[in-house]
Amino acid sequence: MDTTFWLGNLAAILTSLSFLPQAIQVIKTKDTKSISLPMYLMFVIGIALWLVYGLLKNDLPLILANIITLIFSSIILFYKIKE
Amino acid sequence: MDTTFWLGNLAAILTSLSFLPQAIQVIKTKDTKSISLPMYLMFVIGIALWLVYGLLKNDLPLILANIITLIFSSIILFYKIKE
Repeated sequence: MDTTFWLGNLAAILTSLSFLPQAIQVIKTKDTKSISLPMYLMFVIGIALWLVYGLLKNDLPLILANIITLIFSSIILFYKIKE
Repeated sequence: MDTTFWLGNLAAILTSLSFLPQAIQVIKTKDTKSISLPMYLMFVIGIALWLVYGLLKNDLPLILANIITLIFSSIILFYKIKE
């Protein structure tokens, strides 16, 4: 429960939850014009691999953070594809 | 050098480099309308904290991945702010 531990947790929370306002904006406006398709294709696959990595390592914070990020980023990718 | 190791590395490469096509698109088009400002504010701060976390833990892959992501995501944030 040292500084490093809390710093890592705060970092994980910020980077995971950051995709929420983007997902909300995309759902509300249906506008994905300036969002990059290759970015979200690479990102969603990458996060899915992070999730498998977390499962293999039995690392709960990694698993939880990546489930959250996978949900939000998949929503953004879905709207981008059907644009 | 097992499957888990390579899976983690592939995941890190994909999620780090995914911000490159978005940065290129933003630089070329100057269009950031559908990109969420709160997302990139939270994300850039989060990645900066991940970098500090990596430095404190002396974790080279974490440091390198987050330096790359910090550069690309800061470019996107810069263009969004001056939009």
